[in-house]
This record gives sequence, structure tokens and C-alpha cells, in this order.
Amino acid sequence: MENGTTTTRKLWNFKETEKLVSASNPTIRSVLDKLTSCLDTADTRPVIPLGHGDPSAFPCFRTTPIAEDAIADAVHSAKFNCYSPTVGILPARSGCIQAIEVLLSVLARPNANILLPTPGFPFYEARAAYTHIEMRHFNLLPEKEWEVDLNEVESLADENTVAIVIINPGNPCGNVYTDQHLKKVAETARKLGILVISDEVYAHLAFGSKPFVPMGVFGSIAPVITLGSISKRWIVPGWRLGWLVTNDPNGILKEHGVIDSITGYLNISSDPATFIQGAIPQILEETKDDFFSKIVNMLREDADICYDKIKDIPCITCPSKPQGSMFVMVQLHLNLLEDIEDDLDFCAKLAKEESLIILPGVVVGLKNWLRITFACEPSYLEDGFQRLNAFYKRHAKKQ
Amino acid sequence: MENGTTTTRKLWNFKETEKLVSASNPTIRSVLDKLTSCLDTADTRPVIPLGHGDPSAFPCFRTTPIAEDAIADAVHSAKFNCYSPTVGILPARSGCIQAIEVLLSVLARPNANILLPTPGFPFYEARAAYTHIEMRHFNLLPEKEWEVDLNEVESLADENTVAIVIINPGNPCGNVYTDQHLKKVAETARKLGILVISDEVYAHLAFGSKPFVPMGVFGSIAPVITLGSISKRWIVPGWRLGWLVTNDPNGILKEHGVIDSITGYLNISSDPATFIQGAIPQILEETKDDFFSKIVNMLREDADICYDKIKDIPCITCPSKPQGSMFVMVQLHLNLLEDIEDDLDFCAKLAKEESLIILPGVVVGLKNWLRITFACEPSYLEDGFQRLNAFYKRHAKKQ
Repeated sequence: MENGTTTTRKLWNFKETEKLVSASNPTIRSVLDKLTSCLDTADTRPVIPLGHGDPSAFPCFRTTPIAEDAIADAVHSAKFNCYSPTVGILPARSGCIQAIEVLLSVLARPNANILLPTPGFPFYEARAAYTHIEMRHFNLLPEKEWEVDLNEVESLADENTVAIVIINPGNPCGNVYTDQHLKKVAETARKLGILVISDEVYAHLAFGSKPFVPMGVFGSIAPVITLGSISKRWIVPGWRLGWLVTNDPNGILKEHGVIDSITGYLNISSDPATFIQGAIPQILEETKDDFFSKIVNMLREDADICYDKIKDIPCITCPSKPQGSMFVMVQLHLNLLEDIEDDLDFCAKLAKEESLIILPGVVVGLKNWLRITFACEPSYLEDGFQRLNAFYKRHAKKQ
Repeated sequence: MENGTTTTRKLWNFKETEKLVSASNPTIRSVLDKLTSCLDTADTRPVIPLGHGDPSAFPCFRTTPIAEDAIADAVHSAKFNCYSPTVGILPARSGCIQAIEVLLSVLARPNANILLPTPGFPFYEARAAYTHIEMRHFNLLPEKEWEVDLNEVESLADENTVAIVIINPGNPCGNVYTDQHLKKVAETARKLGILVISDEVYAHLAFGSKPFVPMGVFGSIAPVITLGSISKRWIVPGWRLGWLVTNDPNGILKEHGVIDSITGYLNISSDPATFIQGAIPQILEETKDDFFSKIVNMLREDADICYDKIKDIPCITCPSKPQGSMFVMVQLHLNLLEDIEDDLDFCAKLAKEESLIILPGVVVGLKNWLRITFACEPSYLEDGFQRLNAFYKRHAKKQ
């Protein structure tokens, strides 16, 4: 063949971009895809998806019709078919994933480093790798309800550190930070001369004893950039509508050119669909409290089931009961299992044998832990833990 | 004030990112914003917007109800509130702006260069600057209906050239390339060992004697990546739904790792809203031909008016009648004008004095030319050209 591949190998100038292939590997999505490919198609039971934070498929977690109608109204109005207006004052222009992209692109400069939590949300790592920001990881402390190890933060930072990321309510840990702890984070940031990126995608999804406190209230101590989204509170992660908000009463971000850089990056980025932006006022104004309380109550019930059932399964332990978000981290005790190599192996075999998907902790930075999503129909959750227990018993080390 | 700006100047580690501020400046959007700020608020006439390719606000260019209903159906189905599935086979995952971002990020590597048209679409320049791909510009030839200067292309390329960009139907020139010319572009790309990026955002919007031919038909000569979108054909630029399609029957892109790199980049990028992706099959299947013919006929009528009216205004000349897209390039003859410095000055004064917005050619790479968008209500277009003529007469050099 004239254009056959054997003769063209040296004729083309383009090639693979190594850093892209490595920056994007492994993502939560790619690992979940791999686990899905392990499923046994002969198993007639439904698959129980406790791997990702997307309960939108469950009827009990369906979004409010008010939000759906707002979108339909916006699109039928024909007012929002146009390009969206210019960047303006950083309004609802990006999904939260894109907000992370924007921030890490803006903060990237030679030798810059950023402080990221372990465990955390690996999209930060992927974008930091791609933009060549050095990552320095601090630990969240399981014995202290996943608080930030602030001593470690101080020891990791230097004059090239530009920001610290916190996620509250916590993904993957399900923790909620107290007012006092958040203030200490701000004071540490102030001391180090860095800004706080507060990922509050799970804002208001707090159902334990601690209320959700937005980090922005400490913006006068250190500048805070808050990331938010309608994805989780309205259970519409596929709508891709989020925002970044600066909480900076002293104008430090503006003074240091960070706002101009954000605007510059947004000018060369894509927007979310205009009509989704256009629907936002209606969605925010009209959604009733009873929708939010229904969701929070459902999550509390799920968290209770989850925490109870974990106690029945010897090979996993949970350091603290989840108080927010949709996740809990549990430690895996391989010494109690016979033929399981690590968390990845555990999850692959679990998918194959029990049609149950759970995320290996290594993907979020903690090897031989598991991230369990409890946001689903309670009956699914009960079924899921029964399968997990059956799996444990089958693989338990003989005494 | 304790946290006052004067004392904080040296305490913070983060700062402006120069390359972002420069890469994003000037964009079409920023220049149009500047022109809008020149408008005289005392002028009670309506503003005539011939500056950007977005006629969605005009009733005669409203999209089909079939497309609006498809979105409303998708959002009400509750099937598309979830995260969208994995990258898969490069489906409708990105707006076209994002597709450009993806491609330029994928092609970036040390010393790589890319061939871009002059005049062109400045978003390519902005993303190339940001990703540090060297830009080499070839001319489109006004005397040859804006064909690519293929001799220049050959002289510009070297072993580090990775791709050539063509835009067909043309933005900003309103040209449509013949089958023969596209074949020559492919043959040149083959000779140089580069891929062709064919920006076909205005696909099917051809209303002259030349039919629109997709570049993909020449994919067996050189690999082609085609960018498409529903933005223009359905007049919904704010819906942000586009795609990139590889036309590469010999598998060269796959063999050289380009497909893996694209997948890698999409894994660390944001998606368009799932329900917009979900509405696409219904939009594509159900839209009737009469909607498309109505739009194309409207554009033909507009192009005729535009071409005729230009002839009445001595200070601008049009090298060839537009046959596609929504734009025409006209040359500005400053020697016939008394007090106009350049195209930017012309457009700023025109906005101020006549409430008429036209894009200065310098933004698309041709100083002292103008890009006129003719896609609008015919009565607006006639009014716009009357104002342009009045402006010319007021500023004409005395004989």
C-alpha cells in the first residue's frame, strides 16, 4: 500500500507528548474505567457503584425540577444562544475542574511549588504536573478527624511556595473543618506568604455536629480563592457549572497581579454554555430549603449505614465517622487477607467477584486505603456492604 | 489598617503571570469590548454590531425550535445530570475553542512550530503563545480568492514544523476553497511531513458558486484533524459544543501517539455539559433541511447587500465577494481619509460617532484592513453601511 505505515514512520514530524500521557495517569476516571472492565458480565446482580461521587442516577438523589426547568426556560428564551459576555468580575464561568485548571495555570512560574493534601483530589496533581508546578504534599491526620498537619505545612514551605489547597467538606475523607482549624490554616498561610485555595465543591453538604464554615470568612488574614459548583449540592455534576470567588478584602491578589492573570487565562479559555450561566439566578433563587434538607438527610442516613456496616468487616477500619461530602476513607488491613496484593488488587477482585466498585486509596494518595462513596440509595448501600463482607470472608486469612 | 496594602507588598510569594497577560492580548473579545466602551451613550440609534460572528440575537437567525427542544428534553430526562463518560473515541466533547486548546497543547514540544494563516483567527495565536509553540505565518492571497500561498508554506516549514491550520469556509475572509486547492494543501502537508488542522466551524455555510468540501476527504494524503461545531450552522455559539474528528485512514496519528496525547489531555480537561452532549443526536437527526436553507439564503442575501454597499464607499475595497462563513475582509485606504491614524483609530471613531462596531483587521493579522460581519438583519446591514458612508464623507480628505 502506497501510504502504508511501514514507509511513513520517518516521514512525519509530530509525535506523542510524554507529559500529557503521564500527567493524566491515573485519574479517578481511568481507574474506575479499569475496574468497570473487570466486572463479570455473567453476574446478573446490579452493579453497585461506590466509586465515584455522582449519585445523580438514583431517583432519591434526583435534582429539583426547579433546576431542570430553569435550564429549559433559559434555552427556550433564546436569550442565551449567544456568546457569553466578557470575563467581568469572575462570575460563574467555569466548572470546578476548569477552575482548578485556571488557578494552577495562573500560579505556574519557574520554581513555584504548591502544597497539596494527602489524601486529596488527584486532579490537582494532574494539572500541577502538566503546568510544571512542583507539588509538596502535607498529610491530613486521620486521628484528628483529618485536620491539616500545620507543622508539616510550615516545614514544607519556602519562598517559592505560592498556595495551599484545602478541601472542605473533605473529599476523600468526609471530614468538616472547625472554625478554629480554618483560622489556623489562614494564619499559617499568612505567615508563609501564600494564598489559600479552598475547594468547597461539597459546601453545605455537612450532616454531622460541625457546621460548614466557608474559608472566605478568614480572607482578611490571608487571601482566599474559593472554588464552588452547583454539581454536588444540586446533584448535577454533568452540568459543569462552577465558579471561583476571591475573598480578599485587602486587595492583595489584585495588587500582585493574580486577578489580571486569571482574567488573562479566562480570555484564552472556553466558557460553559451561556444558557447554563443564564439559568443560574433562577436556580439559586428558587430552589427551596426542603430540597437541600432532603439531600442532607439522605446523606446522613447513608453515612450512618456506612459507618455501622464498616464495623462488621474486620479487614477495613474507619478512623472517624464522616460528617460531610459523600465519601469516607477506610484503612485496608492486608494482613487479614490471604491473596490480596494491595488496594488496587482488592478493588479489581471485588469488581470481578461482587460487581461492587470502590476506589483504591492509592488514586487519592493513600496506598492500601479505600475511598467509599456512600451517596446512593440506602438499599444499594446495604447490599454493597453485604457483598463486601462476603468478599472479605472468602479472602480472609485462615486463623 | 493592620493588613494595609503598603505593608504587605513584600510578604506574599505569588505574582502576575506575564505570559498569560500577553498571550491573551488582544483577543477579538477584548478589542470589541474596547470599541463598545467608545460608544456614545447620547446616540439614541441602535448599535449595529458588525464586529463578531454571532447573529443569534436577530430573530431571523434564531435557531430551530428542534434544537431548543432537544436540550430541554435532555435536561428533563434526568439521564444527563451525571458526569459524562470517559473520553472514548473522541466524540462531541469540546467546544471548538477548547478543541484548539487541546490540539495546540498536544502538539507543543520544545522547538515545535506551526503554520498559521494571515489573516486568521487569533485564538490560534493566543494558545500557541501560551503553549510556547513557535508560530510561522503564511499569507492568504486576496487576489486568488484568499487561497493559501503554498510556495510560502514550503519555504517556512522545516523538520520542526508539526501542523498547518486552514479555516474553510474562511474566517475572516469569507472564502470557500475548491476541491483542487484543498488537495494541493494535503499534498504539501504530505511533502512536509505535517498534519492538517482543518477548522470547519463554518462548514456548510457556503452560498456562492463553490460547494463546501470537507478537508477530511484528503486524509489519505496527509492526516487531517477537522474541527467542527454546532455553533454556526445552528446559530448557537453560546452552547459551546464542538468536536474534533481525525481523518486518517492510514492510522498515522495513532501510530505517532497523537491520539494517545489527545486522550491524555482530555482526561485532564473539563467536558461540555453532559445534557448538551446528550441532546446532540436529536439535534442532528431532527433538524430539517429547510432550516439550513433558510440560514444559507439569509447569508447569501446579506453577502450581496454587503458586497454592493462596499462599492459605494471609496475608502474601502473588497478583493473578492464572500462565498461562505459570515465575514468579509475589506482594505482600508487611509490616503483617502483626513484624520484617521489606522484601522484601530477608524473603528474607535466609527463606534463613537456612528454606533457601528466593526473589527479592526490588525486583530486578525492584517493592519489597515477591516473584518465586517454581514450576518445580521438585512435592514441593520443597510443602516450600517449608510452610517459607514456618512462616516467616510465626514472624514474624507478634501480634494
